[in-house]
Amino acid sequence: MEDSLLRFLSPDRCDIPGRLREAMEYSLTSGGKRIRPVLLLSAGGAVGGDEKEMLPFACAVEYIHTYSLIHDDLPAMDDDDYRRGRLTSHKVFGEAVAILAGDALLTLAFRLVADNAPLVPDPHTVRAVVVELATAAGTAGMVGGQVVDIESEGKTITAETLEYIHRHKTAALIRAALRVGALLAGGEPAAVAAIGEAGGDLGLAFQIVDDILDVEGSLAELGKTAGSDERKQKATYPALHGLEASRRQARMLIGRVKERLQVFGARSAPLCALADYVVERKS
Amino acid sequence: MEDSLLRFLSPDRCDIPGRLREAMEYSLTSGGKRIRPVLLLSAGGAVGGDEKEMLPFACAVEYIHTYSLIHDDLPAMDDDDYRRGRLTSHKVFGEAVAILAGDALLTLAFRLVADNAPLVPDPHTVRAVVVELATAAGTAGMVGGQVVDIESEGKTITAETLEYIHRHKTAALIRAALRVGALLAGGEPAAVAAIGEAGGDLGLAFQIVDDILDVEGSLAELGKTAGSDERKQKATYPALHGLEASRRQARMLIGRVKERLQVFGARSAPLCALADYVVERKS
Repeated sequence: MEDSLLRFLSPDRCDIPGRLREAMEYSLTSGGKRIRPVLLLSAGGAVGGDEKEMLPFACAVEYIHTYSLIHDDLPAMDDDDYRRGRLTSHKVFGEAVAILAGDALLTLAFRLVADNAPLVPDPHTVRAVVVELATAAGTAGMVGGQVVDIESEGKTITAETLEYIHRHKTAALIRAALRVGALLAGGEPAAVAAIGEAGGDLGLAFQIVDDILDVEGSLAELGKTAGSDERKQKATYPALHGLEASRRQARMLIGRVKERLQVFGARSAPLCALADYVVERKS
Repeated sequence: MEDSLLRFLSPDRCDIPGRLREAMEYSLTSGGKRIRPVLLLSAGGAVGGDEKEMLPFACAVEYIHTYSLIHDDLPAMDDDDYRRGRLTSHKVFGEAVAILAGDALLTLAFRLVADNAPLVPDPHTVRAVVVELATAAGTAGMVGGQVVDIESEGKTITAETLEYIHRHKTAALIRAALRVGALLAGGEPAAVAAIGEAGGDLGLAFQIVDDILDVEGSLAELGKTAGSDERKQKATYPALHGLEASRRQARMLIGRVKERLQVFGARSAPLCALADYVVERKS
């Protein structure tokens, strides 16, 4: 996975001016958990697909995730100086290059999908993959969630608004990653839908656990300033529902995810293990 | 065209939080010349395609152009308060929403292409369109050009670097617009290549004329502060080659464009007229 993420933007494949390349590579090698691409591959595996042929599409999802982190960290957004213990892109490369590195990664994700269409037997599948990623990344997904998140800072928001933010800002791309895996594996519409429902719940649980870790964590453990959500007056699950209820909610969602995956039998074991990891992880 | 640009993000088609929708619509209705989508339609017409079925794809190109203007105007980039006589997006909606409106328009462009794939008989064409747009918008196109442009500010640059910036930042998307039109019209590879060559020269001429107008213009005529390139110490054709040589270069390029279009016969008349407009326009 790590190799592939850089290989798809190697100089023989991508014409990238030097400073921009540095910025893109810097953010792609920042020690992320790669949870989204791994989920894509595991979802594809649950439906019986060949994981090797899904690799470029898994990287495309990680590019979209990485773009969103770069833009979210900008001074005009969350204004974060550190992520995973390293300086954020704009602190190293300046705001202009950081914005452009994000733009470039988002764009490259779509090129990667289209470039690798020959790996997919049915050309209509590639179209469906573009729809999934563009919907998850766009106004009905990550961008929409981020706008509402920013507008909610410092305000008292309802549980519904908080779930809207989490489902859009975080869960949408995780849901899309699972659906894309299932689509690439040639899954029937019912299978793709079932995997997608599981992905939505998994994504929400992931963000709730992130909220919990933000409260509990320390700089050393999380690699970013602990309690940064609170500092920024961001609404979180623990703030709204309390830590214990948040933990219960995350565990409930993961239980539901695993129930939804039962129809896929033994092939969904890696996906179920990832679901457990999401709720049990310490960082 | 104006109607279509807004229709594809109407509430029944797109789920967009209110403030973000306002920002996207604000920039899409800012009185642009719509040169890129019109060029796409005319290129498709030159190859014998049905312009009506190309409309969503033409809008996708304008979304990409609009996203690039919003991001280029940001304080971290060109720091422009006005464009076409109106306040820029970040002056009206704040930087965060402006960045996100740009992100959303770029993303929506790809969704629009994928959503409208059924209008295109050959599904492989849609894949080719995504490659064209992602290549033109990405590191080997607009983003690459913008990075080099920003890094060149205040420096003495060579004629080669200036042409690199113009060919990437401006000409790449114009070239892609023409190629996409030809692709959608079912053009043979040779026809797409010929149209693309014409598009590259047309795009470069367009930017040279923009440089000339920036020197000559006034706030009233251009809708942005005249001489803003000079103020920002941007390298331009007139600064490097002089006004008269720049005008000659633009006319030479347009002559070459029209020569390249001769193979398409009478059907390329609208495209030739647009080429003349590009070099003769006063704003």
